[in-house]
Amino acid sequence: MSDRQVRDIGEQGLLQRLQQFCPGEMVGDDAALLSVKADHLLVVTTDVLVDQVHFSDHTTSPQDVGWRAAAANLSDLAAMGATPLGITVGLSLPGDLSVAWVEELYQGLTACLNQYNTPIVGGDICRSPLTTVGITAFGQVHPAHAIRRSTAQVGDVIVVTGVHGSSRAGLELLLHPELGKDLSEGDRTTLITAHQRPKPRLDLIPLLYTLTSLQNSKFKIQNSRFTSSSTPNTQHPTSLTGMDSSDGLADAIVQICRASRVGAVIDRRQISIAPALRSWMPEKAMEWALYGGEDFELVLCLPPEAAHALLPQLGEDAAIIGTITSESAVVVHDPIGQHPDEILSLDRGFQHF
Amino acid sequence: MSDRQVRDIGEQGLLQRLQQFCPGEMVGDDAALLSVKADHLLVVTTDVLVDQVHFSDHTTSPQDVGWRAAAANLSDLAAMGATPLGITVGLSLPGDLSVAWVEELYQGLTACLNQYNTPIVGGDICRSPLTTVGITAFGQVHPAHAIRRSTAQVGDVIVVTGVHGSSRAGLELLLHPELGKDLSEGDRTTLITAHQRPKPRLDLIPLLYTLTSLQNSKFKIQNSRFTSSSTPNTQHPTSLTGMDSSDGLADAIVQICRASRVGAVIDRRQISIAPALRSWMPEKAMEWALYGGEDFELVLCLPPEAAHALLPQLGEDAAIIGTITSESAVVVHDPIGQHPDEILSLDRGFQHF
Repeated sequence: MSDRQVRDIGEQGLLQRLQQFCPGEMVGDDAALLSVKADHLLVVTTDVLVDQVHFSDHTTSPQDVGWRAAAANLSDLAAMGATPLGITVGLSLPGDLSVAWVEELYQGLTACLNQYNTPIVGGDICRSPLTTVGITAFGQVHPAHAIRRSTAQVGDVIVVTGVHGSSRAGLELLLHPELGKDLSEGDRTTLITAHQRPKPRLDLIPLLYTLTSLQNSKFKIQNSRFTSSSTPNTQHPTSLTGMDSSDGLADAIVQICRASRVGAVIDRRQISIAPALRSWMPEKAMEWALYGGEDFELVLCLPPEAAHALLPQLGEDAAIIGTITSESAVVVHDPIGQHPDEILSLDRGFQHF
Repeated sequence: MSDRQVRDIGEQGLLQRLQQFCPGEMVGDDAALLSVKADHLLVVTTDVLVDQVHFSDHTTSPQDVGWRAAAANLSDLAAMGATPLGITVGLSLPGDLSVAWVEELYQGLTACLNQYNTPIVGGDICRSPLTTVGITAFGQVHPAHAIRRSTAQVGDVIVVTGVHGSSRAGLELLLHPELGKDLSEGDRTTLITAHQRPKPRLDLIPLLYTLTSLQNSKFKIQNSRFTSSSTPNTQHPTSLTGMDSSDGLADAIVQICRASRVGAVIDRRQISIAPALRSWMPEKAMEWALYGGEDFELVLCLPPEAAHALLPQLGEDAAIIGTITSESAVVVHDPIGQHPDEILSLDRGFQHF
């Protein structure tokens, strides 16, 4: 590994080294050129990560910073039902940062991006006393397949993919390794990997496309049945409702309810938590599952029959955790009465500043 | 003006205030949805600005930081021949920054963007010890109208829009107001405005579209003439060559020549410099014109007949400043011999770090 610093090779030297991580045809102009499919919408999302705020050398290798930055942005695309087209990377770097750190950051970015065939299509590098990484990701989605937050209906059930709380648990193990001395090596690795190498759920997007296409063709049939009837047709084509759980499961549920002007009742027992976390920190597990964040799973609201049809295809940890109500509150309820009802609000989720 | 700090109103509070600067339909999901015209390419460019590196309260109001950030990104779109679709803004902010500063930044951004009907479609805000502003801009261009750096041909002439050096002169006046005591108020304002409120040359893009359409229809006619002839047709459809002069006029010429594997001879006397600058700092004017940067004009390479047809439409300051050669060097030549020949290289231009 080279111990050369960024200032030793300058901006042009660094750009040349980083161009190996980009497709050849993307390099050399003022901007990148990308194709968007006809009739598809462009989807754009952006995220900024700051040294000592979102990562530190203590818990995060440059490869992990890169992987997680890519995963967070791809997860925002998945949250919209989109497939990725590419990302840009805006870097601010101190002159005394090692060139190796920057190259390892790009290795981490591309390690994640390559899993989803997503190129780095451009970027900017500039001098700064502080390292920050700004990612903007682009994707495309057919309007009929776009996932929005504001379309949850009373009676929909809430489907959540994967497990929650593991990323927060992995961070705890990195910050306080001594706390994990009773954990098996396998369990420790599971939790730390959940934090360091989270996976955006782009794998589920084609499945959701099938669902919306199915629902909408069913809608069309029902709709045509009504054309000669006097019964007014109050149905609308299905649009998927949901978002990702990057800021926590509680945050996702509350954001969807707020945007849709509905409430929800959540069944505490249905929230999937990794066995490794449940046995290691039983008293913390639910708090981390609800508020920990960075699990990058999908939270979807669907009519019950659609949810039950979809669920077996979402993997064994996916679950129906609750129902959309006409109340204004989001309540976490324990059906066996071991815990009192808990009202979820945005205030308890992670707030910057 | 409120003296409240960002940490007083928190992330959600700040987001709410900033949403007034975005179109209503863009707010509230994980990502923004935008339409790209059929058969058009998506154009993406990104830029990062850092407090004390790219701006400081000494020379730049938050409105000016915003205007210049928007202008720089729109200029990159103009440099590709694209029309803008929108921008995203990634902000890192210290908690003790005033809310007014952030709102004024957005006022400056939208003041510039509104001139070009460009919305802010999304963003991210995060806590940081240092203020940085990362902008990603999106545009669209028909492939036939895209401007590239790598397609300059020997014999093309180099057309430059507007004047150069004024932005650098304006910065000097802001840093050292005492130097400008002999300047008229009008001249001082001209130079300072050039620095604080530069204009991306998106106004010229429709004109360039007409040119490429014309050239290509001419090519088709010539091409069809040759179909029954034995003379091989060596002509290609015209694609425009060029870039913007954001990193300096010298940088733009050298970048185009390097990408196109050609050289150039520049006629020193043809480089347009504002009279205000020429009379104020005659000994510095040419250096600032070549190396100052941030004038955000366009540097285009065209066959001579096309350039002569275009020139009268580009405004009185536009000029043909030189010719593309088969040499490897880019030489600035003084036809009256007052200055020795000067070789332009990337090293003398602005290098970060």
